[in-house]
Amino acid sequence: MKIGIFGTGMVGSAIGTKLVSLGHEVKMGSRTTANAKGAEWVKANGAKASQGTFADAAAYGEMLFNCTHGMASLDVLKQAGAQNLKGKVLVDVANSLDFSKGMPPSLAVCNTDSLGEQIQRSFPEVKVVKALNTVNCNLMVNPSVVKGDHDLFICGNDAQAKTKVVDILKNWFGWKSVIDLGDITAARATEMLLPIWVRLMGLYKSPNFNFKIVK
Amino acid sequence: MKIGIFGTGMVGSAIGTKLVSLGHEVKMGSRTTANAKGAEWVKANGAKASQGTFADAAAYGEMLFNCTHGMASLDVLKQAGAQNLKGKVLVDVANSLDFSKGMPPSLAVCNTDSLGEQIQRSFPEVKVVKALNTVNCNLMVNPSVVKGDHDLFICGNDAQAKTKVVDILKNWFGWKSVIDLGDITAARATEMLLPIWVRLMGLYKSPNFNFKIVK
Repeated sequence: MKIGIFGTGMVGSAIGTKLVSLGHEVKMGSRTTANAKGAEWVKANGAKASQGTFADAAAYGEMLFNCTHGMASLDVLKQAGAQNLKGKVLVDVANSLDFSKGMPPSLAVCNTDSLGEQIQRSFPEVKVVKALNTVNCNLMVNPSVVKGDHDLFICGNDAQAKTKVVDILKNWFGWKSVIDLGDITAARATEMLLPIWVRLMGLYKSPNFNFKIVK
Repeated sequence: MKIGIFGTGMVGSAIGTKLVSLGHEVKMGSRTTANAKGAEWVKANGAKASQGTFADAAAYGEMLFNCTHGMASLDVLKQAGAQNLKGKVLVDVANSLDFSKGMPPSLAVCNTDSLGEQIQRSFPEVKVVKALNTVNCNLMVNPSVVKGDHDLFICGNDAQAKTKVVDILKNWFGWKSVIDLGDITAARATEMLLPIWVRLMGLYKSPNFNFKIVK
């Protein structure tokens, strides 16, 4: 499958590398065609890896991953272009962590709204599926980094899009348990896990942990 | 031990009943001395159970539990009286769930502040320990309602107060794992678990589940 990824940071790189290793063609999008981290990633990942602008990546991908900083995501998606996003599944991995007021970070949007909803409202013709935003990028594509059973949460308005994403999470990335929390408004709930995630990372001095719902 | 509980709802009643069953003397506080739910609870719990105003319960207890609705808690504690709270440990079980805008509820305070912090700021001489606010009242005093290992979170500024509360949670209530997230600002993190808790309760049609951190 051809996949477009927005963002050349650790998250985009981890997901892109995994997808290329599975035989998919991945275009990494950034603000400029000559982004240095993008070029490095392309060089490391061979013929199926390419880079371009956000619009290039959006036009290229049959499926898209938003791996940008949450506070930049809406601007990035404007650059990607509504026409290029139209009808596609966008896995929104981003969190609107605001570090501008010091540590611990707060969320730029939460409680009565969420980044996932903002994206869905701004681009009504893209199928936003919020997923993977509650785990570190190591775990995203290799959940066995944390031993034992643990859960991933997804939400979104489009049932078919969620089915596709669950299939990818389970069969490509190796997730055993994916909990569907409902429509995109549930992104409030998963984005609001970030404050405890940040505290736990401070406590454990490691990002290699995850939530499990025990019942 | 003499314990004061603010709030005669399901949470106050569950905690009060457990404490009386363990041999402690408990005074349930409410707005009036003749609160009907308070009277019912006293009748059901025998000689070690009593009721009174919030101020009566605060003056009575060597340790205090805030089991009121989060949106009423600050007013309740004003009625309890700073002088009656002074120097005591207050276990803050409340969440500022705001149902006024429909379902799912939002939080009246979150992200850059929390109810736990508001209480600590308003009553600097009480030792606030945020705890038990992330589980249903059934689990609070009987964690084995949910099988297997799962975690409770606490936070607060006073290390000795937290040690006392952890002792109560483990040795009186039966909790095996209590994770100390740090000072009272971590109440932001645990109170912000409520949105996903509410979604999960909707999904499972049951409040009998809990979080476990897997690492």
